[in-house]
Amino acid sequence: MPDLNARPPFSVRLRTTVADVGAPLCVGLDPDPDRLPPRFAQGGAADAEAFCVAITESTAPVAAAYKPNLAFFEAYGPEGWHALGRVCEAVRRSGRLLVLDGKRGDIGNTGRRYAAALYDRLGGDAATVAPYMGADSVAPFLEHAGRCAFVLVATSNPGAADLQHLDVGGTPLYEAAARLAADAARDLPGEAGFVVGATRPQLLTDLREAHPDVPFLVPGVGAQGGSVEDTLRANAGGPILVNSSRGILYASSGDDFAEAARDAAERLAASLAA
Amino acid sequence: MPDLNARPPFSVRLRTTVADVGAPLCVGLDPDPDRLPPRFAQGGAADAEAFCVAITESTAPVAAAYKPNLAFFEAYGPEGWHALGRVCEAVRRSGRLLVLDGKRGDIGNTGRRYAAALYDRLGGDAATVAPYMGADSVAPFLEHAGRCAFVLVATSNPGAADLQHLDVGGTPLYEAAARLAADAARDLPGEAGFVVGATRPQLLTDLREAHPDVPFLVPGVGAQGGSVEDTLRANAGGPILVNSSRGILYASSGDDFAEAARDAAERLAASLAA
Repeated sequence: MPDLNARPPFSVRLRTTVADVGAPLCVGLDPDPDRLPPRFAQGGAADAEAFCVAITESTAPVAAAYKPNLAFFEAYGPEGWHALGRVCEAVRRSGRLLVLDGKRGDIGNTGRRYAAALYDRLGGDAATVAPYMGADSVAPFLEHAGRCAFVLVATSNPGAADLQHLDVGGTPLYEAAARLAADAARDLPGEAGFVVGATRPQLLTDLREAHPDVPFLVPGVGAQGGSVEDTLRANAGGPILVNSSRGILYASSGDDFAEAARDAAERLAASLAA
Repeated sequence: MPDLNARPPFSVRLRTTVADVGAPLCVGLDPDPDRLPPRFAQGGAADAEAFCVAITESTAPVAAAYKPNLAFFEAYGPEGWHALGRVCEAVRRSGRLLVLDGKRGDIGNTGRRYAAALYDRLGGDAATVAPYMGADSVAPFLEHAGRCAFVLVATSNPGAADLQHLDVGGTPLYEAAARLAADAARDLPGEAGFVVGATRPQLLTDLREAHPDVPFLVPGVGAQGGSVEDTLRANAGGPILVNSSRGILYASSGDDFAEAARDAAERLAASLAA
């Protein structure tokens, strides 16, 4: 394994990468076997890998980051983890940031072993982390210098309202989760970021006002209905990665998928750079 | 892969397995490389596997279920997933219930791919699931008949209080998570269970009163300080699995680890059967 340890702070690399590329675009790598182009019709781990590598190579000129979705690899067992490793290598070769979307979260040595898998073995620059178990379940993902734990704060799905929007003494639960994440990062070498969906711009506005310097990972533009303009306005120039998965990956269902993905990524990057 | 699909309801199998074995003991399989006996000193995936298989074979006479902790396998990458698969086979061979502790949680096709990994590929009877994203992130783990999604409700770690104990309009958040899980299961073929820590018996009492028939997975006895007597009293005879990991796995640090594990499991099973 390459030495993937010493890295400058995540938010510094986020800023320089976005400046280099020209837009804060993150491409979500969700190789859904039911939606892959005909040449990947077998739908196995090797096809998921080849599809994601092709998408990465095609879109790297305009993407600042890639976000492999671990579920779509894990479903193939060991072969899926081999494929995931090679997709992560392709992202690292591209020079872009690697955000591993596994929504892990656990305490003590268990959390540390997840963090080792994500940061040390796969070489992730960042990982998505679930906060329900509390600060001690987020902390293990903050123990690696130069990495960022994007904690689920206000997600973009309809069910987000079930718990996240409940009032906990004058503030919504998502603000308590945000504070928990920011506080947990205070004495640890890693950084905390927030996952904040684009589907409810007012939450993004509120969270950005309360946390001006925290990196946000924003899913939910495009297929899920969030608007780029609203997202950028709400973000007010803070550090951000705006993720799109399906709108780029499946821009064409034919064998021109890589070119169509690049076109879609270019259009989204242009609107994000505006 | 064997056909692992059609299974009777989880709580029926829980009842019959516990009746056969005599106690609701679940053995947590957390092969921590820093704590394995000398003969597994390499600490790789093969050692994790051999250790867990030996523990399973040694304790099966008194255990109703096994709970592999995915972090300790995933940290080895593809080889870890191979090892995990073989540990799951050993559990299935033992005739005991297989609870996969990965604390996954995600929506739609992503959640379905996690569920496919856990239930179809690894053959889990149950999986632990994180509720922060809401009902639509729990539902994919409830779509498999005969399986149980043990949703994190009130965990046993100190950080549990950070979010789970916040008041959300007259009830604690953990009760809202419990209701969300129970409601999500209503129209789906799988069952919902709750993870409820042994370290705060009053929560167990409250949750059992409100949800008399829901299977509880209870960590936190032994090393974490929860008492068996308090747990059984609070549970009031409901469907339950009481988990112990370290107290059994590391009962001896020598090469008599398997015999020591069986002795520790027998003692705990006896106190749980009382």
